[in-house]
Order: sequence, then structure tokens, then C-alpha cells
Amino acid sequence: MLAALRNRKRRIQSVLLRHGIHEEQVAEILDLTQQIGVPVQYVDAKQLDSLAHGATHGGVMAIASPKQRLNGDELLDLVQKLSEPALLLLLEGVDDARNLGFTLRSAEALGSHVVLIKKHLWDFDAAEVARPASGAYERIDLAQIDDVSPIQNLQRVGVTLYGCIAGAKRTMYDVDLREPCILAIGGEKRGLSGAVRAICDQLITIPTRPDSASSLALSHAAAIVLAEAMRQRRAARMPAG
Amino acid sequence: MLAALRNRKRRIQSVLLRHGIHEEQVAEILDLTQQIGVPVQYVDAKQLDSLAHGATHGGVMAIASPKQRLNGDELLDLVQKLSEPALLLLLEGVDDARNLGFTLRSAEALGSHVVLIKKHLWDFDAAEVARPASGAYERIDLAQIDDVSPIQNLQRVGVTLYGCIAGAKRTMYDVDLREPCILAIGGEKRGLSGAVRAICDQLITIPTRPDSASSLALSHAAAIVLAEAMRQRRAARMPAG
Repeated sequence: MLAALRNRKRRIQSVLLRHGIHEEQVAEILDLTQQIGVPVQYVDAKQLDSLAHGATHGGVMAIASPKQRLNGDELLDLVQKLSEPALLLLLEGVDDARNLGFTLRSAEALGSHVVLIKKHLWDFDAAEVARPASGAYERIDLAQIDDVSPIQNLQRVGVTLYGCIAGAKRTMYDVDLREPCILAIGGEKRGLSGAVRAICDQLITIPTRPDSASSLALSHAAAIVLAEAMRQRRAARMPAG
Repeated sequence: MLAALRNRKRRIQSVLLRHGIHEEQVAEILDLTQQIGVPVQYVDAKQLDSLAHGATHGGVMAIASPKQRLNGDELLDLVQKLSEPALLLLLEGVDDARNLGFTLRSAEALGSHVVLIKKHLWDFDAAEVARPASGAYERIDLAQIDDVSPIQNLQRVGVTLYGCIAGAKRTMYDVDLREPCILAIGGEKRGLSGAVRAICDQLITIPTRPDSASSLALSHAAAIVLAEAMRQRRAARMPAG
């Protein structure tokens, strides 16, 4: 909730505190609400419980608008205003809310500017996504992609679309991830959709052990390919040593 | 279960099939049981249900010994017999069974020979670990580490212990991960234990975005540092291109 207050990507209507909660426990929240002019209300524990629908709340709750999603135009606008080469992550077919949350957390830590997700991924319970994301869910920009046209618009302004698939001949080490790019990761069952695959500029693979029976889980694949983009971008900024 | 039969890291006492199950459904299992001489018994669905304690079984169940854990001597022996430089992962403080399962899966895919885990991680429900690991739990070697002496024995035969911690000056790109090594990853709350930290040959960090409020989850950190070892080892095997 602190992340939501700090980042203001959601409109917070009010903050509810349990009657009798110690002020030092919520000092930072009270500070922030004052700074940004959000009203604070004291309510009964029972009222909080019923609003929380079974989730834990620790005596504090915010009434907020849902997390905003960028549409195609807003996404294009944001990318064009970046002061550094865009690093975008496109996720298709994440299998559960927790894995999506962990992926958003790594995406933020590894410098992804926006995460593009398919419409159906918005069906996950936001609280289930937010918990493993530890704040990243509130801070990172998410764009909802209903068809491939927003991706094509990004390609037109020079963003390269890399599809990460098992068995591609080229590896992620063979391509230049310092330039503006979208890294597309498919679900574990069906991989990338035909529609996305058809417009990829390049297909790349994350090398794994050739004789291994295991493949990488989607959220680990996303973390590894973003870390590789980070490595290339750092190396470009630093003198060879 | 196929993974368990194929890899024989557990002693399978017998395989139970539901009366009336279609033989073509279980053809591969029947083949394997015959090959390795495991008796097959047909039982009632009710009996399977009660043995499964609520887990789904699809009409097939194996009665097996628990997953074996290497002790310090067996670990040392295995490492000394490897035909390539050892790549070991040491996990401290994994917070749940699912994350451990995903980590074992990536560890196998990225060429880790053995995963070293602390005693308390064995308290997780094996079925909860095995599910996200999709077979890797059966295939990968696990060693139980109760104190640091088995690690020190590995160091004595030339295995380098790298502790991955946030804020270390050296990054994982600055060290040579082609040589035999243990990559130690700490839990998210407490990081690496003092005992392990005290014997690390080097502390290294996985670079993240300096201005990011997010850090990497343990299982993602493990995947990223193993992928880096894989990158270095591949590059060493291949002609520069």
C-alpha cells in the first residue's frame, strides 16, 4: 500500500485505519496521505474485515481505483518519451497470479520500462499478483495488448520485437539488446501465439543444457533474458576493464 | 512419476494401478516397471484415494522410498567424479515449496550438478516441491548441508564458493564461473547466513537497475546467476564469432 501511495499510479480515494491502531505503526502512511491530500478514516476492525474479503490487512486499508493499464496510444507515447532505449517485456499465457507477480518484480529490478500483457491476464486477482511483486505491481507500467497493432506501432518507431522460443537457432547472446526492444515470452503450454510469432523481427533462445530434460519456467525465462539485456546495456555504458 | 521410474534415484517398491484403467494410458509406465523389475498391483479407486491423502493420482501411484539426499562424503565423491567443472547451487532460506520446485527445475535446465540445501528445507511437502519442478525434483541430485564442513571439503579440492549478495562490489560478470564453483543464494529476509558468508571465497552481486525499488526473488536470482555460468561455459567451448 505504501508503494501505491508513493507512486500515484492509482487514484487513492481514502485510507481506512482500525480504531485504536498505534500511530507509530502507520506513521509513514499518515505522512504520505497528508502530503498528497488523501482523507483518512478510522473504522471498526469488523468493517475492515468485511471490506478485505478474507485478505489480511493489519488494520490499514486503502480504497483505490483499479491499477491503470496503458492503451496502445499511451504505450507508444511513453516509449517515445523515454530518455534511454526502451526495454519492454511482453508476456503471453502466464499460468498464475503468483508467477505474474514475481515476473513484474524482476522486470522492475532489471530495468523493464513497461510490461505488455494480454487481456486475459487481467482476470487474475490483483491482490494475488501484488503480493509476490512486493510493490513492483504498483510501480511498474502495464499495458494491455488486445491484438498485435500496438506492437506493430512500436516496431514502426524502431523497436525490435524478439520472440523467445525454445529451439531458435540464434541465442539471446547473438543479438543486440542495447537497442530499443520488446522481449516476448510465451506460455509454457502453447508458447508464443501465432499472431505474435508472425510479426517477430527475430526469434531467439535462452541456452539451456542440451541434454537436460527440464525447460525454464516462464517467469525464470523472463528474468534471464532481461538480465542479459541489462548485461549488454551495462557493458555499453562502462569502459572495458 | 515417470521421472522417478526413469531416474531410479528413489527405490520404487511397487506401482499401483486402478482396476479398469486403460492399458494404453499407462503403457510407458508398464514398460518401465517391467524393465526395472518393479511389481505392479491393481487396486480399487478407493484404496488409491486413501493412499493419496487428497492429492490427484489419475489411477496410478508408486510406492517409493523418500527422495535420497547426498551426505557430505557422497557429495564430495560425486563432484570429484564429474567429467566437467562442477556447477553447484547452495540455497539458504527458500520461503516456500513452490519456489524451491521452480528453482530445482531451472537448476537442472541450466546445468547445475547438485543443489545443496539446508536441513530445514527438507520440511517442505515433497509433492509441493515436485509439482512446479516438473520432473527435475526426481532427476537432480540434492545434498543436505547441516553445517559448513561439506562446503569446506569442496573448497579444499578446488571448488570456489561465491556468495551472491546485494551490494557486493564485484558482479557475477567479473568472476570466472567456468571453473568449479558453488553459487550460494541467501533467503530474501536474512540473506546468506553468517556461517556461509564467513567462508565465501568471493562475494558477487547480480546487477539490477540502481534506481529500482525492487530486488530479485531468490528463485529468479538463482536462475540468473546459473544462466551467467552457462553463458561463460558456452563461450569457452565455442570459437569466438
